[in-house]
Amino acid sequence: MYDVVIIGSGPAGLCASIYAKRAGLRAVTVERNFISGGQVVNTYEVDNYPGLPGINGFDMGMKFREHADKLGCEFQTATVQAIKKQQGKNQMLLQAASIESDKEQDNQGTFIVETDKGILETKCVLAAMGASHAKLGIPGEEELSGMGVSYCATCDGAFFKGRTTAVIGGGDVAVEDAIFLARGCEKVYLVHRRDELRAAEILQRELKSLPNVEIIWDTIALSIDGKDQVEALQIKNVKTGEKSELSVDGVFVAVGILPQSELLLDVTVCDEKGYVVAGEDGVCKTPGIFAAGDIRTKKLRQIITAAADGANAITSVQEYLLKNKI
Amino acid sequence: MYDVVIIGSGPAGLCASIYAKRAGLRAVTVERNFISGGQVVNTYEVDNYPGLPGINGFDMGMKFREHADKLGCEFQTATVQAIKKQQGKNQMLLQAASIESDKEQDNQGTFIVETDKGILETKCVLAAMGASHAKLGIPGEEELSGMGVSYCATCDGAFFKGRTTAVIGGGDVAVEDAIFLARGCEKVYLVHRRDELRAAEILQRELKSLPNVEIIWDTIALSIDGKDQVEALQIKNVKTGEKSELSVDGVFVAVGILPQSELLLDVTVCDEKGYVVAGEDGVCKTPGIFAAGDIRTKKLRQIITAAADGANAITSVQEYLLKNKI
Repeated sequence: MYDVVIIGSGPAGLCASIYAKRAGLRAVTVERNFISGGQVVNTYEVDNYPGLPGINGFDMGMKFREHADKLGCEFQTATVQAIKKQQGKNQMLLQAASIESDKEQDNQGTFIVETDKGILETKCVLAAMGASHAKLGIPGEEELSGMGVSYCATCDGAFFKGRTTAVIGGGDVAVEDAIFLARGCEKVYLVHRRDELRAAEILQRELKSLPNVEIIWDTIALSIDGKDQVEALQIKNVKTGEKSELSVDGVFVAVGILPQSELLLDVTVCDEKGYVVAGEDGVCKTPGIFAAGDIRTKKLRQIITAAADGANAITSVQEYLLKNKI
Repeated sequence: MYDVVIIGSGPAGLCASIYAKRAGLRAVTVERNFISGGQVVNTYEVDNYPGLPGINGFDMGMKFREHADKLGCEFQTATVQAIKKQQGKNQMLLQAASIESDKEQDNQGTFIVETDKGILETKCVLAAMGASHAKLGIPGEEELSGMGVSYCATCDGAFFKGRTTAVIGGGDVAVEDAIFLARGCEKVYLVHRRDELRAAEILQRELKSLPNVEIIWDTIALSIDGKDQVEALQIKNVKTGEKSELSVDGVFVAVGILPQSELLLDVTVCDEKGYVVAGEDGVCKTPGIFAAGDIRTKKLRQIITAAADGANAITSVQEYLLKNKI
């Protein structure tokens, strides 16, 4: 019986595993791939995690993992297939007597984490599966990812100072990204498939006031071109059918985020976008379930905030174990 | 006119300066001492900041600062003496016309940060002055700080696995520290000056159930002894006057935390303990004032959570500047 099964080995999961080990908890971190670091692994350069300036994403994942290994954290390479709540003793007795359980007794249950390698029994589950960015699915996107194609302006925008970039999308994130990039870039295109933006009015107003931003309406991206580095974006006006080329150094794709929360949909509460509902402390609506990192409802999804989440969630796990004496 | 003046150069302030620079904000970080890193600097070993295992606190402060320097962040060594709100144009006009300003107009004000080196004018202030731990003020405490004397069990407890430690205090933190330490230590003494604990009942119950914890009532610490490393704690029973010695490897002082919020008491809202009231986003009750790190109301005060706060607060600063167009 584990105290906590941590699912995911990105910055949130790895920091959680470090904190769990140091707190003396019986913990295991389950990772789908043998490589730790989560989304970080595919990042060309990370320059906003204090203390590790300009580090390659792969190296960063390795450093985090080595840290956990050095402390003797337990890992398992496996794919989680289901998370199931087991009823506690009190609950079963109460149910047999047809008495409704109150909240404290409800907390007595444990969990079964089913993986393709076997079953893990645990008192708590920490969901740190992260989120992935929706892809355009056009030629060049995957090939040039990390070489000019990015899914996070806050993360990578600073690398494009004085250069020309294009943002693809029309929601809040796309417009925020364009505003953010406009502060450092010489020119920013916002390419949007419709003739109006979904973004908040205040963001639209700010965007339209910026002299170095050009909005390209009714337009989709066809392909991203470049050799080792983004050089151009091929676009097509959906109304006129006209094709053209934008000469750009970077393409920021902001067409949505997909939290990896499928496994939790039956176990706890997720919001309409699929994010697991949890505050800074990582406490979810279901007692014994915790969430950390990009998967949870939060404002800023960064390596540093994901790692902090891992520490906060383990503190909540400790409190939960203490309170429920399981 | 700065976009943001960051006060304090611990992990929160340094991460904020990195994020502010990368966001293209006009920012300056004011630090009292020439050495960056805040409380971290005096920490013997830090082993829970992912990616930098087992690093010396001073080196960690240097690494953070070098990161900020590499990005070209602006620093000033100065002591802040006062933070003053300046009225915005709209406010002055309204006041002249005896009309009460509404919230949005109230946001138009800027701030003056007075230091011993001069005056800084800014649109936003980010308070990252941290907190300091209350000291016992007994012989050996300062000399052996970082060499067995610690003010944070979550930070340093893991270094005392299989050894004997003493916690001094009787509140929630002291009892939580003792419970935390009991998981790894062979023996934990809790030394408390009264005959009952102030800590929550549930914590007391847990503490008293632990076979390797011994509570020493009505007792104060007289001195901490040791050569290069803590060896013993001299104690005195305040009722009997009897003195004795505890042979320990570590002493955890948990007699209170003092948030460094004096400068903010007139400018924004602090709670009864002096913490600046602000959530995960760092937004304070006064528009234009933000808080990050140990100084704000939060559960877990760690390097990683302070750094994350810096990133979150700068994101809020960006939103504020955008919304208020100042």
